[in-house]
Parts: sequence; structure tokens; C-alpha cells
Amino acid sequence: METPGLLIVISGPSGAGKGTLCKMLREAMPELEYSVSVTTRAPRIGEVEGVNYYYVDKATFERMIENDELLEWAKVYDNYYGTPKKKVLEHIKQGKDIILEIDIQGAMNIKKQYPQGVFIFIVPPSIKELEERITKRGTDSAETIRKRLSCASEELSYVSEYDYVIVNDTLENAIEKLKAVIIAEKCRPQRKKLEGFCE
Amino acid sequence: METPGLLIVISGPSGAGKGTLCKMLREAMPELEYSVSVTTRAPRIGEVEGVNYYYVDKATFERMIENDELLEWAKVYDNYYGTPKKKVLEHIKQGKDIILEIDIQGAMNIKKQYPQGVFIFIVPPSIKELEERITKRGTDSAETIRKRLSCASEELSYVSEYDYVIVNDTLENAIEKLKAVIIAEKCRPQRKKLEGFCE
Repeated sequence: METPGLLIVISGPSGAGKGTLCKMLREAMPELEYSVSVTTRAPRIGEVEGVNYYYVDKATFERMIENDELLEWAKVYDNYYGTPKKKVLEHIKQGKDIILEIDIQGAMNIKKQYPQGVFIFIVPPSIKELEERITKRGTDSAETIRKRLSCASEELSYVSEYDYVIVNDTLENAIEKLKAVIIAEKCRPQRKKLEGFCE
Repeated sequence: METPGLLIVISGPSGAGKGTLCKMLREAMPELEYSVSVTTRAPRIGEVEGVNYYYVDKATFERMIENDELLEWAKVYDNYYGTPKKKVLEHIKQGKDIILEIDIQGAMNIKKQYPQGVFIFIVPPSIKELEERITKRGTDSAETIRKRLSCASEELSYVSEYDYVIVNDTLENAIEKLKAVIIAEKCRPQRKKLEGFCE
């Protein structure tokens, strides 16, 4: 039997830089698989169907919930977000490592079902920096920004639920740490078979 | 109060390549501290007092045991090996990370006293490879080699007691993994303080 792949959950408050880090990780470790989430929110400028998300309407999403096609789902800022189950489980079974970039609610739901996953929390260096990043991105309304910031402080209290916390001070530092966590987790003895030794 | 440093224990069967890896780690991560063990065994050619070991006679070692000056000690192949306590605890308290390169017995003793340490098991790719390495090193008698090899199989059963296992297939791979483990462990949430966030 194949050693199962890692389920690697990358999470953290909105604006912490999860998206940019995952993009860099794709280049740095091309052997990793990525789960594409499904959402009812409208695509942001530059986002691509099937790459950033699968974009569906509310009725379709609710049908997926009913048919148990989602590993987890959550309603955040009036939109649904979810992780299609089938592909994730297939990859892990085949021994491939798969990245899930999801919000904190989603991560906590995954943890309940799959505690042997690797849970990584990305945080901005400070709340002030977070506000600047979200504002600069220019994709969110003032109301959304206010909502996100008031959530962020609360969200940070989840840090102890995670296996690792990476402070995204510079992208260079953060990507080095992210890579290190993945390499290290592959050295866990329970994930290893030692070849050629008597049992 | 300073966040305590990591106590990083690098262990594994004799001939797995611990020594060479630790030497490379010194260059790769010069900020790490190293614990120098004390032993009653004779220096090998090229070994330096205070760098590889502190070399003492049996009476001195036994006095150190009595005076509780050792964090752990063990008798292996008719020689005493031990870890001087004072320096290790001082470094950790000051927030510095310290490497202990010790045999498996020693590592297990440390684990009992300091389970929050990071325990890394270095293994050769196979028993055959291990035999070749010990023989090639040319520093051990035939009798010692025989003893070491018969121990190695038994020693490998300790792998599940460790946090990480690194197969030393090539030095390049192994050092990358060793560095990754240290970087990753510094991202553990219990080792972090998040600055500038409301509690």
C-alpha cells in the first residue's frame, strides 16, 4: 500500500498573503497538488475558473452540500466556500501531497475530519499591516474591509489550533518557512517506511 | 521573558552519518549552538578536545555523575558518554537553539527529562550501506564493527520514539531535511509570540 500523501491546509486571516504564498509555492515545489475550492462569490479581476475557484450559483452549491460532495463548506461574508471531496481523497490515497488554501472556518472543519493533516496558519506581521494590504488590494468595499478587520483579531485566536504559524513579514522568509514545514512533515516517522531493515 | 530556545537532539545508529551532518549544519546555520559531550573513550584520529568531545578518565566521569553535572549519561561499548548540563540549560534559557549529537540511549534519557525537545533520527539508507560506511571509516576494530551492526537493527526500532526520521541517502538531501526540520520547529505556535495583536 502506498504511504498516504499529506493534506496540507494553508489558512489565516484574509489579507495575510495566503494566495501569493501559494502561487510562489507552486513554482518552488511543482510536485504538489492543489485543491480548487468552489464558491458562490463573484470572481475578482484576473481570477480564472478552475484555477482560483470553481464559480457556481447558490442553488448548485446547496445541491453539492446535499449530495455530500464537499469535504467542508462554510458561509463567509454572505458567500459559500467549499472543498470538493473526491479529488482531495484520491490524491492522498495515491501518495500525493495536496494543498488546501482555505479560510479558518474551513480549516477547523477539515481538522475535525482529518486531524492528521498539516495545519499552517499564515499571519501578517501586524493588524496595521493587514489593514494596509487589504486596502491596497482595492478589490473590497469599505464595508467588507471593516468586516474583515474586525474578524481578523478574533481569527488570530485560532492560532493554537494549528501545527505551524508563519509570520508573513517578507514573502522570501515566509516561502522558505512554508517549504521547510512541508519537507519536515515528510520526515515524520509515521509517514515513513524504512526500506531494507529487518522489522 | 525570552522564548526558550530549541533543544535539538540528533541521534541514530553509529555510522548513519550524524557527525558529518552536524559538521555541515554548523556551516549552514552558524547561529546554532552545539553541546560538546564528555566521554571516557579515546580520541579518534583528527578529533579535538573541546570540539568533538571533552575526554576524561573514568574516575572524573564518575565524579560528574555523582555531582549531578550531566543532563544524561550512558555506557556504550564499555565507554561512558554524557552531556554536561549547565551549558545546555543556559543556552535554552537565553533563547538560543542548541544541537545535541548523541547516541540513542542518551537521546531517550533526554526525552524523559525534556520531552519538548526536537528528536531527530538519522538512518543510513540500508544495513548494507551502514556496514560499508563503518568498515570504510577504518577507526573501529572488527569486533567493534560486529557489535555495532548487531546493535543497529535493534536501534532502528526506536524510530517511532523520534519526532523526525531523516534517511541519509545523500548528504545534500539529508542536510536540506535537517535544516527544514529546524526552521519548521521554530514555526510551532507554542514557540511563538505574535507581536502587535490584541490578545
